[in-house]
Amino acid sequence: MGQDAPTTEFDRDVAVEPTGEGRYRTELSDRWRVGGGLNGGFQLALLGSAIRAELSAQPDPIAISAYYVSPAVAGDAEVTVDLRRRGRRTSTVAAELRQGDAVRMTALATYGDLRAFPDDVKLSDEPLRLPPREECVPGSLAPPEVKEMAPFIERFELLFHPDQVGWAGGRPSGGAELSGWFRLRDDREPDPIALLLAVDALPPVTFELGLPGWAPTVELSAHVRALPEPGWLRVRHRTRFVAGGMFEEDCEVWDAADRLVAQSRQLALLPQ
Amino acid sequence: MGQDAPTTEFDRDVAVEPTGEGRYRTELSDRWRVGGGLNGGFQLALLGSAIRAELSAQPDPIAISAYYVSPAVAGDAEVTVDLRRRGRRTSTVAAELRQGDAVRMTALATYGDLRAFPDDVKLSDEPLRLPPREECVPGSLAPPEVKEMAPFIERFELLFHPDQVGWAGGRPSGGAELSGWFRLRDDREPDPIALLLAVDALPPVTFELGLPGWAPTVELSAHVRALPEPGWLRVRHRTRFVAGGMFEEDCEVWDAADRLVAQSRQLALLPQ
Repeated sequence: MGQDAPTTEFDRDVAVEPTGEGRYRTELSDRWRVGGGLNGGFQLALLGSAIRAELSAQPDPIAISAYYVSPAVAGDAEVTVDLRRRGRRTSTVAAELRQGDAVRMTALATYGDLRAFPDDVKLSDEPLRLPPREECVPGSLAPPEVKEMAPFIERFELLFHPDQVGWAGGRPSGGAELSGWFRLRDDREPDPIALLLAVDALPPVTFELGLPGWAPTVELSAHVRALPEPGWLRVRHRTRFVAGGMFEEDCEVWDAADRLVAQSRQLALLPQ
Repeated sequence: MGQDAPTTEFDRDVAVEPTGEGRYRTELSDRWRVGGGLNGGFQLALLGSAIRAELSAQPDPIAISAYYVSPAVAGDAEVTVDLRRRGRRTSTVAAELRQGDAVRMTALATYGDLRAFPDDVKLSDEPLRLPPREECVPGSLAPPEVKEMAPFIERFELLFHPDQVGWAGGRPSGGAELSGWFRLRDDREPDPIALLLAVDALPPVTFELGLPGWAPTVELSAHVRALPEPGWLRVRHRTRFVAGGMFEEDCEVWDAADRLVAQSRQLALLPQ
């Protein structure tokens, strides 16, 4: 973005203003709300944006782990970034999102310059295959009351795999997978910061398992594996273990060049 | 352990002495060394032990994420535990392992009491199947020079899947999986703290892919999914994406009752 004013909604909403000594002020927009709190992926991208501002020569998140401790709400907020180690290739920080005295989210991250990493692929699983976009089911078809409850879902285009949207009509398939095409509004192309949103933009994978209700994230770690090419992203959530009141949700994000560009795993609590 | 002196090697080596205000002193033993630094899983268990001491009523790690920033060595060390949120069901802390002025590892964790979590299994993948222990290949067969380089490997019994030890003889199979039976010395039964060691006790999965050399961990997140039953553990490492100089290593730990008791994912750098 350089010194220019951001021209897309996403860039405006993750913008932060430095106030010195690793502190950044921001205004959290209600646009990213899902129910009673702001989406966790948006919070991660916002934090990621502040860390990028602090570590300007190492601009890319390589790994970031977030612990969500209280719901973030629209309004003033502060991000603190505390350097734990500066290295030649990567640096590690602790970062926190606060509103007043309340910690919303606390995180650790290692950043680097992905352009300086090797570009070869020694081993890759099969790229995520989705039906053509015109055969997928747009999230924008959600009824007005859902959009009011979750204005978040209008921040991007999300085209669901048609075999995995039973939950939306009250007939979940029982499958342990949700996937779809993803693109930010304003033709905002993907970059590592946007990937931090993409890993937590779909509904909980448990919806399609017939376990509706929001699933609070305990911990989410995201790894950015490569710089994404411009174009649509493909995103998949899967789980293998739903037990003890918890489940893991694994996310993969693929870019237009069929490269795995991000992975994440979160541990979430089942709705009680 | 209560107030009794620890009777097993593992418990002695993860013991910490409170010095007030969330600070704990410990002596890191050379027993856990692998090459030039102490094993990351041991560091995680040690940190986990200090956090347990701090949050005594919520003794179990549910999620812990560690960022390794410099090699820990034998000698004096300090763990700091900083409460970020105390909740009724779970609490979240930031914790750090330091030696002198050097940060070795910085972490976030959410702890709770796993006995208070529901015990049902709604969805589970197939338990890890391994050949009988007598058909597996003991790590104790490693030559003396390996044991001197890595005294760590003598801290537990590790019986490798016989189809996945080609690397040990210089003939890696090219598979993306390593697995084996695991048990601590002194008949020390598994518990959530020992699981933090178990998730990082095997060699890097890349060995069997024909990419030898130690693979420094950038980030490791572990989730303890249930209290383990007494007995042998089964542990598996897998990777699906080795690219851009990095790979993810996913670990599963199964207990004697065929329950998934821990999962972890780490992002590691390929040897250069």
